[in-house]
Amino acid sequence: MNKRLLQVLRSGPEDEVLWPPPIWMMRQAGRYLPEYKATRAEAGSFLDLCYSPKLATEVTLQPIRRFGFDAAILFSDILVVPDALGRKVTFEPGVGPRLDPIKVSEISELTIAGALDHLKPVFQAVNDIRAALPPEVTLLGFCGAPWTVATYMVAGRGTPDQAPTRVFAHQHRTAFLNLIGILTEISIDYLCAQIEAGADAVQVFDSWSGILGESDFNDFCLDPMKRIVAGVKQRHPDTPIIGFPKGASLHYERYVRETGIDCVGLDWTYPMKLARERLGGHAVLQGNLDPTRLVAGGDALREGVATILSEAKGSRFIFNLGHGITPETPIDHVAEMIAQVRAG
Amino acid sequence: MNKRLLQVLRSGPEDEVLWPPPIWMMRQAGRYLPEYKATRAEAGSFLDLCYSPKLATEVTLQPIRRFGFDAAILFSDILVVPDALGRKVTFEPGVGPRLDPIKVSEISELTIAGALDHLKPVFQAVNDIRAALPPEVTLLGFCGAPWTVATYMVAGRGTPDQAPTRVFAHQHRTAFLNLIGILTEISIDYLCAQIEAGADAVQVFDSWSGILGESDFNDFCLDPMKRIVAGVKQRHPDTPIIGFPKGASLHYERYVRETGIDCVGLDWTYPMKLARERLGGHAVLQGNLDPTRLVAGGDALREGVATILSEAKGSRFIFNLGHGITPETPIDHVAEMIAQVRAG
Repeated sequence: MNKRLLQVLRSGPEDEVLWPPPIWMMRQAGRYLPEYKATRAEAGSFLDLCYSPKLATEVTLQPIRRFGFDAAILFSDILVVPDALGRKVTFEPGVGPRLDPIKVSEISELTIAGALDHLKPVFQAVNDIRAALPPEVTLLGFCGAPWTVATYMVAGRGTPDQAPTRVFAHQHRTAFLNLIGILTEISIDYLCAQIEAGADAVQVFDSWSGILGESDFNDFCLDPMKRIVAGVKQRHPDTPIIGFPKGASLHYERYVRETGIDCVGLDWTYPMKLARERLGGHAVLQGNLDPTRLVAGGDALREGVATILSEAKGSRFIFNLGHGITPETPIDHVAEMIAQVRAG
Repeated sequence: MNKRLLQVLRSGPEDEVLWPPPIWMMRQAGRYLPEYKATRAEAGSFLDLCYSPKLATEVTLQPIRRFGFDAAILFSDILVVPDALGRKVTFEPGVGPRLDPIKVSEISELTIAGALDHLKPVFQAVNDIRAALPPEVTLLGFCGAPWTVATYMVAGRGTPDQAPTRVFAHQHRTAFLNLIGILTEISIDYLCAQIEAGADAVQVFDSWSGILGESDFNDFCLDPMKRIVAGVKQRHPDTPIIGFPKGASLHYERYVRETGIDCVGLDWTYPMKLARERLGGHAVLQGNLDPTRLVAGGDALREGVATILSEAKGSRFIFNLGHGITPETPIDHVAEMIAQVRAG
């Protein structure tokens, strides 16, 4: 059975372009869906939901049933990795994630032995989703990039500009690079295990890569991603890897060329024309609708989608948002967006 | 008396480069200084401090006395403009600014008549600072850019990604462009009045310009800044204008070329080498130390400063941070940074 989205991910610069483009949405399983909220209410904590193969499978499939997206993405959270490393992670409703901020002395004590065992329910979910998914739908696994995961481990929470972690990284550079190294290593194992459980492709989310100066970007984002791509490709050379260095703007080009990713996620600030010119020869493009246009609907949505389609047409392209869909997004707007994309 | 910083601002691409470069810091009058905290405690509310010529003059001068910076920047806040437009603005300690979020119907009722009268204490402060300032110190006036000021007027507060205002702008485009137009017009008058009161140059802070897609950036940031520069230059052709489109990364080049600013503020994510290559022929460069290196101190600070100095050397350059100094910054680190910059 032909998986259109996987076909695009595997295509090269000389291959014929698939049009209309395949489509999925970051956070497509989430609080904008009433059926998600119902399942969420059944689970205890948010992490209980992530670690229940049955419930994680259910919420992963919900947006596929409702909208027929071309890809399903494993329902999970980037912070299951610190949780698996033995750090305390909780999700407080309406407040967001809270972790015990890691101390310098605790970094050298981190060990990835046993962490993958802790994540077995996730791999079971991947397996179950694969079994339940229509055969034409591509299944994506994912993880957070080391820098982005580290920002939560150090600060203990999300912050507007990750200043606590930037200060920590500057004050304790050796220890911080060790932390990045550990997260890089476990990310490789974690992504490979998802692939072995049935993921067709994987995406690495570096949601905070745009907040760094150039040398820090090189050390904390670019080099680790090179190692992740090399490590995963060594074991699974045919599995496409999507990199999403959100906000990395001026660094996107080097990120795409130097990491060897197959597809690059574009946030909404990256102009599609520039992406075709500078990135399109090296990777499949994915993105990049401003999620607030999807919330707004009407002309803002139609014009946003139309601009992307017209500028991306002729390139290897997967339609997506430029960041995750937000809870207040009207479901009708999602349906309208999909119809417009599928009309090409 | 020669004002070194003003001399750099007025220099052209063919002029001899001043080295070591002049230096000042964004938010150099602020909570990292004990003398600021003492004066702040004397004032009632934060806005009382902004509207007291005596106290605003005192806190503006404090960092000049302590560190001998090459520029003083008027102590004020970008939100005095919505306050002058009759919007309710308060600053809650530890919480940040709070405004009554503006409704669509209220935008057409905004009038700039009388607003400048409300801001007279600010112009008196500029006048008093000018009189008290050593003659070799450049005096900078400033305002917030229309987009950045509008984000607070619409959302009623700072938010991590200004999504409320982005949704509003997409849903009510005509009204929002009217708001941007009103803020553009008052910004011109406000900057000109500061110049007439004694400011040697002015800076326009667009702290949130990096969060927009390209067409929104054009409409909400670039076009208004073109009009502000043209409007101010019409009345004060010899007064340099500094633009600071924080986070605008891929748009910096067009912003510099198309607005006609004399100097561009670089946030810490913009590589200095690229700035010289793409921007240095069109504007004086200003920036761009990561403020978290100043908090961290030690090698991170020394290496950060050294990299900037070595990469900027030979260009028309003003040393600064890439964003405002934060309250937790040790004062000793500031002194070390200044000494290193002045050693060239």
